[in-house]
Amino acid sequence: MPHIVHRIGIHAPVTQVLQALATAEGVAGWWTRHTSGSADPGGLMTAAFQNPKGEEIGRFVIETLPHASDTELQWRVKEGPVEWVNTEISFSLSSQDGQTIVRFAHRHWPDAEEFMAHCSMKWATFLLSLRQLVEQGTGRPAPDDLKIDNWN
Amino acid sequence: MPHIVHRIGIHAPVTQVLQALATAEGVAGWWTRHTSGSADPGGLMTAAFQNPKGEEIGRFVIETLPHASDTELQWRVKEGPVEWVNTEISFSLSSQDGQTIVRFAHRHWPDAEEFMAHCSMKWATFLLSLRQLVEQGTGRPAPDDLKIDNWN
Repeated sequence: MPHIVHRIGIHAPVTQVLQALATAEGVAGWWTRHTSGSADPGGLMTAAFQNPKGEEIGRFVIETLPHASDTELQWRVKEGPVEWVNTEISFSLSSQDGQTIVRFAHRHWPDAEEFMAHCSMKWATFLLSLRQLVEQGTGRPAPDDLKIDNWN
Repeated sequence: MPHIVHRIGIHAPVTQVLQALATAEGVAGWWTRHTSGSADPGGLMTAAFQNPKGEEIGRFVIETLPHASDTELQWRVKEGPVEWVNTEISFSLSSQDGQTIVRFAHRHWPDAEEFMAHCSMKWATFLLSLRQLVEQGTGRPAPDDLKIDNWN
């Protein structure tokens, strides 16, 4: 099944990048401000997206899987758009050349069609938002996220 | 084989977006300034990348395939990094909600590993550069492209 994969480097220690990924408060700083629940292993985190009018346009319920290692996080999508349900999202971190390298993957899409293409582009901009949060203190989470096409 | 797919919307007519994709001069405005040759069907275009010192760090030779339609462009990679050779890059354009929607694909990677992840992230930023070029008149082609990790 098709996968989205991205790679980004962040000028900050691994522990600081992990903080932005391993708690709902951290995720609210770069993905969507309306993130709540628990990002602990076994916990459920809800990430909701609103349009500029404050109406909900999407909602994901995500389970954090048991950590395979100290530098790897894995989420499973429990609820959301049908294409997302049971997909897996992972962040694998390493230290290279004074940067924290984040290998991102969103795996097991039903097909590599237009919605995956939209989400691939959105993930790239959210990873830039994550970098901005960690390096500069402020990310660009929804609803102030960069709009990339007529879908969002 | 794995594919990179992205989707972006540009606030400009389809013909204006095509101009930035269908000539070497256009491509030089958003991908790499050192683009030369012919982007006509059957033609060969060379896109070279330099580091800040002006040393070449990569070079691609790309053949434009016969146009399947007026709103679709397809490239085949003839020379470049081994993972790129014989891959296909395509841009499919449509008009939706007052935007030109670009469906981008880079198909037939040998695997969805780290280099593809790097290139997926880079393509996303080059598509933002394409949008900036078309909407605002100035893109961000290499060597002034956004650096995304320790590889470039």
